[in-house]
Amino acid sequence: MTQAPVPDGLVEAFWEYERALMSDDVPTLDRLFAPGPATLRGDANGLLVGHDQISAFRSSRGGAPQRRIVQTHVQTVDDDHALVVAVTELARGGRGQQTQLWVRTGDGWRVSAAHVSVPAPAVDTRIWRLVGDPLVPPIDSGPLDGESVAVKDLYAVRGQRIGAGNPAWLAGARTEPVHARAVEQLLEAGASVRGIARTDEFAYSLAGTNAHYGTPPNPQAPLRISGGSTSGSSSAVSLGHASIGLGTDTGGSIRVPAAYQGLFGIRTTHGAASTYALMPLSRSFDTVGWVTRSAELLRRVGDVLLPPVARNPAAELVSVPGLTAIASEEVAAVVDRYAAEHGAMRESWDLTDLPAWLQAFQTLQAWEAWQERGAWIAPRLDELGADVRGRFEAAALIDDERAVAAQDQVDEARDRIRELVRDRVLVLPSAASVAPLVGEGLDAVRTATMSLTCLAGLAGLPAVSIPRRTPAGLPVGVCLVAAPGRDRDLLQLAVDLG
Amino acid sequence: MTQAPVPDGLVEAFWEYERALMSDDVPTLDRLFAPGPATLRGDANGLLVGHDQISAFRSSRGGAPQRRIVQTHVQTVDDDHALVVAVTELARGGRGQQTQLWVRTGDGWRVSAAHVSVPAPAVDTRIWRLVGDPLVPPIDSGPLDGESVAVKDLYAVRGQRIGAGNPAWLAGARTEPVHARAVEQLLEAGASVRGIARTDEFAYSLAGTNAHYGTPPNPQAPLRISGGSTSGSSSAVSLGHASIGLGTDTGGSIRVPAAYQGLFGIRTTHGAASTYALMPLSRSFDTVGWVTRSAELLRRVGDVLLPPVARNPAAELVSVPGLTAIASEEVAAVVDRYAAEHGAMRESWDLTDLPAWLQAFQTLQAWEAWQERGAWIAPRLDELGADVRGRFEAAALIDDERAVAAQDQVDEARDRIRELVRDRVLVLPSAASVAPLVGEGLDAVRTATMSLTCLAGLAGLPAVSIPRRTPAGLPVGVCLVAAPGRDRDLLQLAVDLG
Repeated sequence: MTQAPVPDGLVEAFWEYERALMSDDVPTLDRLFAPGPATLRGDANGLLVGHDQISAFRSSRGGAPQRRIVQTHVQTVDDDHALVVAVTELARGGRGQQTQLWVRTGDGWRVSAAHVSVPAPAVDTRIWRLVGDPLVPPIDSGPLDGESVAVKDLYAVRGQRIGAGNPAWLAGARTEPVHARAVEQLLEAGASVRGIARTDEFAYSLAGTNAHYGTPPNPQAPLRISGGSTSGSSSAVSLGHASIGLGTDTGGSIRVPAAYQGLFGIRTTHGAASTYALMPLSRSFDTVGWVTRSAELLRRVGDVLLPPVARNPAAELVSVPGLTAIASEEVAAVVDRYAAEHGAMRESWDLTDLPAWLQAFQTLQAWEAWQERGAWIAPRLDELGADVRGRFEAAALIDDERAVAAQDQVDEARDRIRELVRDRVLVLPSAASVAPLVGEGLDAVRTATMSLTCLAGLAGLPAVSIPRRTPAGLPVGVCLVAAPGRDRDLLQLAVDLG
Repeated sequence: MTQAPVPDGLVEAFWEYERALMSDDVPTLDRLFAPGPATLRGDANGLLVGHDQISAFRSSRGGAPQRRIVQTHVQTVDDDHALVVAVTELARGGRGQQTQLWVRTGDGWRVSAAHVSVPAPAVDTRIWRLVGDPLVPPIDSGPLDGESVAVKDLYAVRGQRIGAGNPAWLAGARTEPVHARAVEQLLEAGASVRGIARTDEFAYSLAGTNAHYGTPPNPQAPLRISGGSTSGSSSAVSLGHASIGLGTDTGGSIRVPAAYQGLFGIRTTHGAASTYALMPLSRSFDTVGWVTRSAELLRRVGDVLLPPVARNPAAELVSVPGLTAIASEEVAAVVDRYAAEHGAMRESWDLTDLPAWLQAFQTLQAWEAWQERGAWIAPRLDELGADVRGRFEAAALIDDERAVAAQDQVDEARDRIRELVRDRVLVLPSAASVAPLVGEGLDAVRTATMSLTCLAGLAGLPAVSIPRRTPAGLPVGVCLVAAPGRDRDLLQLAVDLG
């Protein structure tokens, strides 16, 4: 072990850095981190690689938590290199650690790698509203013994309120007298409820960027959004906080976070799983869904929540280049490869009406959402995040005539889509892109993704999302869609094909 | 930035280490960590310094969580030194990071420093049973606006059960129809309840080493016990999970964790704060208490929970060498210095009867505890941790005759102690030692500590614990004890003297 003296100037550089950190002096912090693509900075949110990424992170975070250094240890390598390990005491409580490799350059000492740890909060409030050990114990023993559920904050949990992702709604919510049927079924099958997880406001988003509670982390794609609206449940499963993320999928709210976070997910056939004591967004399209980290568990939950139907897992796969091409190139490449590997037949569909179908889907969804929530929301628009507010404001303008026309188009689209899918399994992207970076514009991505997700939504079809990765390692969802009631076939396919 | 090639043999050593970690091959891990006192290994539980400490940690933990390496980055310093940063993907979910400084020695590559991060669990179940954002919102606005409370799992929280630190008790507990009065007072004063925090079983311990839920961490003294029985509330406050740790003190259950964790704490005058809907251990001695990270907040909570009494903060301090000497040398030195700095008069007390007083305290406490819990516990002794079980088994053997004799001694001791303290403020150690290391024998420490804490317990006196540190940086509690009803004077003294 090196016991060499601390090199000249290192102590001064260390303290200069510490002062700059405490005063959020970004230019000085930028200067003291080594330039170039190999510089590293990691914390609980992930590893940043390269000075540019580190600098962008610093500029956006608005300062580090206040702390003082209570221990330092220096391991001197030579006159120009030393590792400094510091124990920090945070003003908000607890201790952290920082490990830095310092390198002397022509311009002085620079940090070439830093690893920072701070104490975790009592609960990550981006993911959870309530959490327990467990929050609700199992009702019985069964096939889900030992599993734990993150319940999207739209399902009733007896003795708790439904928060629906909005603080004003939560404040006025009643205590629920019974469990939602889906929650009860999971508890009866041996699972426990770990907690109540965040949702986008009233589930009316695919992003997960809740304006009140923050964006849950995406551990498989650091610095990228979680996807939503089953956002907290999905992050909870990604992080191993729970094994089952119970959610809903109206227009993609299971498939999108599953795709962004590398999870297995299913939206069930419309009406197949109970929505009793589940707060609706749009009853024509709302379905129960869940995410897991394994196909086997995804299926096992289906055995509990789905009606028993004879299985026919043998399936002819079909892929539609015109649909796959809606996605970004990197996503399309992954889906094409999956389709090819599993012998999917390529087929051309007439997609001329797809934009109109999407429009009809969004119109009917919005009209129904306003029927459900308009009376409560109208005087409280200021208490919604900008994106969800915009959607509800647009929804308020839809008159009954437009809604009826949309309903007609939806009916027609349903028939057409079911005829196209038949008894086959459609392979398409679960979402049109990899998870966008936090802070990126989302409107274009939303429209492209919904052009894909609205097909199962319109036709009430079950859809399973299977996790794959881009060559760069980012999660991509491959979606399998089948005829109504073939949920269990899709779950078996997910196990067989993975 | 160095872009030098990866030195020979480093990659092989890195993977040898990884394989050894995954198979918990302790000898190989020990060999691959550099020998000597300067080797470092840090994680969320604290920084280990020196090969011996690291080796002891490894042998006791029973393996690292299973993981795979998904990214590696090498920063080569020279042929004999390199930093390796790896991103890990845990089998249980989420990603972690590991930073290692590798050094080539005569015996090959060795790790001289390692920093490991893994995702935090949904909730640290050593600290919490339930936690929320918040679990219970404030009832009103008041002097505790913005503060959050960790409620010891002995107080009723409406809609929740009381767990009392024992799973079997929890399983049979009713849902509480109302808040404990102390909880309600805090909510009315503007505080929210962050969650329900762990306690030693039935509060019958000073250690915090709950056999069912584990020992909460002590962030101010890594690898050392939290102290109890207000264990979870104290760790929660230390870590900044909550600002107020609501607990109880029968024989030291506030003073000991406050001392071990460097917190301010108060046990109130017996009967001064409401114990309504608080599960009792021993009614003759049970008191409400709380811990905070600042003297100012400690006092502010007192303004809410204590009856309004005219203040007389001017106080004559007195220290008793025969009491201070019960503590370890390092603790006694801190207390002596505090007493000297604040002009405490040194006074000799006749402590001949102290062992008998302690015996009487423990006898009456045990007898009362058995009256409260014996009927439930007798058929369930197997469901208690060994230490608490031993105490209840001994308690079961105390007949009424011994209890009456103990009561007489307690009455006499109360009068004697009150006469000794008078209108002065006694300065003594809050606990007889710094926090013992996890795994250390605790019986001797418990007896010595209770010889000190039983004085306020026997006489029903208020006691404030003020945090100080040993020269080595370990927390020590300095205890101030005064006449009954002088709680607010002590709280003011804690603010003034700190």
